[in-house]
Amino acid sequence: MYERFVPPCGGQPQFEPKEVSSLSESNAYRLNSKEVARATEEWMTRRGVSKGQIGQLVMLLQKDYFPELTLDECIANVEAVLSKREVQNAVLTGIQLDMLAEERKLLPPLQNMIENDEGLYGCDEVLALSIVNVYGSIGFTNFGFIDKFKPGVLKKLNEKNGKDVHTFLDDIVGAIAAAASSRIAHRKQAEREEKEEAVLPGDGSGEE
Amino acid sequence: MYERFVPPCGGQPQFEPKEVSSLSESNAYRLNSKEVARATEEWMTRRGVSKGQIGQLVMLLQKDYFPELTLDECIANVEAVLSKREVQNAVLTGIQLDMLAEERKLLPPLQNMIENDEGLYGCDEVLALSIVNVYGSIGFTNFGFIDKFKPGVLKKLNEKNGKDVHTFLDDIVGAIAAAASSRIAHRKQAEREEKEEAVLPGDGSGEE
Amino acid sequence: MYERFVPPCGGQPQFEPKEVSSLSESNAYRLNSKEVARATEEWMTRRGVSKGQIGQLVMLLQKDYFPELTLDECIANVEAVLSKREVQNAVLTGIQLDMLAEERKLLPPLQNMIENDEGLYGCDEVLALSIVNVYGSIGFTNFGFIDKFKPGVLKKLNEKNGKDVHTFLDDIVGAIAAAASSRIAHRKQAEREEKEEAVLPGDGSGEE
Amino acid sequence: MYERFVPPCGGQPQFEPKEVSSLSESNAYRLNSKEVARATEEWMTRRGVSKGQIGQLVMLLQKDYFPELTLDECIANVEAVLSKREVQNAVLTGIQLDMLAEERKLLPPLQNMIENDEGLYGCDEVLALSIVNVYGSIGFTNFGFIDKFKPGVLKKLNEKNGKDVHTFLDDIVGAIAAAASSRIAHRKQAEREEKEEAVLPGDGSGEE
Repeated sequence: MYERFVPPCGGQPQFEPKEVSSLSESNAYRLNSKEVARATEEWMTRRGVSKGQIGQLVMLLQKDYFPELTLDECIANVEAVLSKREVQNAVLTGIQLDMLAEERKLLPPLQNMIENDEGLYGCDEVLALSIVNVYGSIGFTNFGFIDKFKPGVLKKLNEKNGKDVHTFLDDIVGAIAAAASSRIAHRKQAEREEKEEAVLPGDGSGEE
Repeated sequence: MYERFVPPCGGQPQFEPKEVSSLSESNAYRLNSKEVARATEEWMTRRGVSKGQIGQLVMLLQKDYFPELTLDECIANVEAVLSKREVQNAVLTGIQLDMLAEERKLLPPLQNMIENDEGLYGCDEVLALSIVNVYGSIGFTNFGFIDKFKPGVLKKLNEKNGKDVHTFLDDIVGAIAAAASSRIAHRKQAEREEKEEAVLPGDGSGEE
Repeated sequence: MYERFVPPCGGQPQFEPKEVSSLSESNAYRLNSKEVARATEEWMTRRGVSKGQIGQLVMLLQKDYFPELTLDECIANVEAVLSKREVQNAVLTGIQLDMLAEERKLLPPLQNMIENDEGLYGCDEVLALSIVNVYGSIGFTNFGFIDKFKPGVLKKLNEKNGKDVHTFLDDIVGAIAAAASSRIAHRKQAEREEKEEAVLPGDGSGEE
Repeated sequence: MYERFVPPCGGQPQFEPKEVSSLSESNAYRLNSKEVARATEEWMTRRGVSKGQIGQLVMLLQKDYFPELTLDECIANVEAVLSKREVQNAVLTGIQLDMLAEERKLLPPLQNMIENDEGLYGCDEVLALSIVNVYGSIGFTNFGFIDKFKPGVLKKLNEKNGKDVHTFLDDIVGAIAAAASSRIAHRKQAEREEKEEAVLPGDGSGEE
């Protein structure tokens, strides 16, 4: 028989206030955001991916829409994406799984699927999409496009040399580029509207 | 002041059993699944998209992986995707919004965004992804690829003639093709494993 | 310098630069972000939902974690969520569909499903989740919780009076509250870390 | 005949046909679906979760809607969900990360976040939602509800004893229960429509 679940009555706390209780313990774990951000940067570098390389992917995705776009701007947008906690979590988790697969420390059959970038294994795409989502749904298309053609650094990440495993990282890098592209599209629109407003004659009221 | 929310105590129903109550009313609304399926098919045809055209998109996405794939197989997989309620809901909702935009019956600024397939409007991609998701995350890449290049029927849907609006439908058709491709990938794997099993000498036990 | 990416063959444009071409037309459509933001606010008010009411939902979701949280803070976070274009798009699209269902202007069987808040119709949840996603996956749980119990304004939106249809809006309001809760959780963590840093004795270098 | 799609320029392969090339290698990796399914079942059992326990969660979620629902039916639906590859991939990946966190084999700060079920770490929810998605968006609400209240086996999985880590598994189990609930909702609707059809007087044609 199944136990009847009785959600708690008024007066009682509806659920354990997790953060509050953990705060009261001494020596308690505390999230260190700077450390998470620093580790994200370090791990990406160690795994052979620079912000400049991701910036180049962004440039490829956006140059036809914004001909004046510079690589520095692209890199700045990549950095903004990488500053988001949701993105950092996905990067760290994905790289960790890639590294463990390289060291053959995963249990079969997960080891085999990740090591061989199994086409029917989609957790890499799932984590990648959580990155794209932060800058909205307009990035899905760019993610898919770049993930299909694997330009630039993605080509290198995809070369199977029997040693390196980048099953997660290549999707994650594509997702960061797609997210940065979305960010640029939103920003450029804002810039254009600001410029147009500046040249429009006002109604003299001094108000918007 | 905000009202304190007291989730109900045991004994009382935790939430209104929606289906049950609506069943007891006379003349009550009842979902007619066949009607939903039929309408999906009819609306797609009326909006100029055939299963054969979506099948061709599937063929384009999958032929390099499965050289023996036939167009009939692709169409059969498109039909399987279209039989899913989640897919039908997205198709009907998307086409409805396209049609209302054509008739200029939406309120501004939504009218303007949908009518002009605004790049920063992403609800079309959001609905499309709900279709892809039904067959798993491996379809994200195919969706993005096809949504970027707009081959076949997607090209036609994207031609702006100042009259037809297919802002939602073109993403939805791409999503159906991507979902059907995922379905094929899963099925082909199953077929291959069955074939391999058939030729392997058993251990004589008659058991798997 | 970045390497120019030339997928398949150079010279030809890979895809029509949509924005660029539309810019060159005279009388061309242009997105007006302020108008989209203004309409979002107006439509929510007209449909009977205030920022204060959503703020109360946020308070309900977060008060056990952050006892010092004020309603004003909650409302400020709701406003931040509502300033995002992805959110505005979902709000406008959802409310539009609700209104058209009220006016019985949708085609059957979509009319019936939306009018009756059909349990097997999930496009409302799909749009809602695109709102939650902007502030990361930690909001899924809060969205589901609030969507189940329908506290505060959600209860009112769910009352079936045979006239008003809020099939989309009630999920959207829950999603905005969940997203604002995620935003608060991220901000509070940042505040705590800043405070801790301020009281920690430095290493005298004046640097972080 | 379908038109061969030749994006940018014909002749060249647009992308490496991954599966095809790996098939031609000797000793090549091949996905073994039965092994993946078997491992999923084994790992869940080893981590202390039975199908019966998940079935009880399903019962809790669905009993008010379908009073005649039996635990056996719930378990059968859990089994159907667990037979999906997308679900198996998420289960194996999540449990693997939990186990590695228990063994303290993850790199900091990922180790700390997973070990402590950090509230701002959302990759567990991301993987869980990929399970829910397979049965459509109607499961989001049930997932959130159950993930908030942690009834039944979820309570046990959430008890922090300083040894066991179930950061991923508890979300995954909730997601499986939510997906099975969606499956039941779809099936029950189909059953009802079949029953209604059987009692309706036909048009005498003997055809549908």
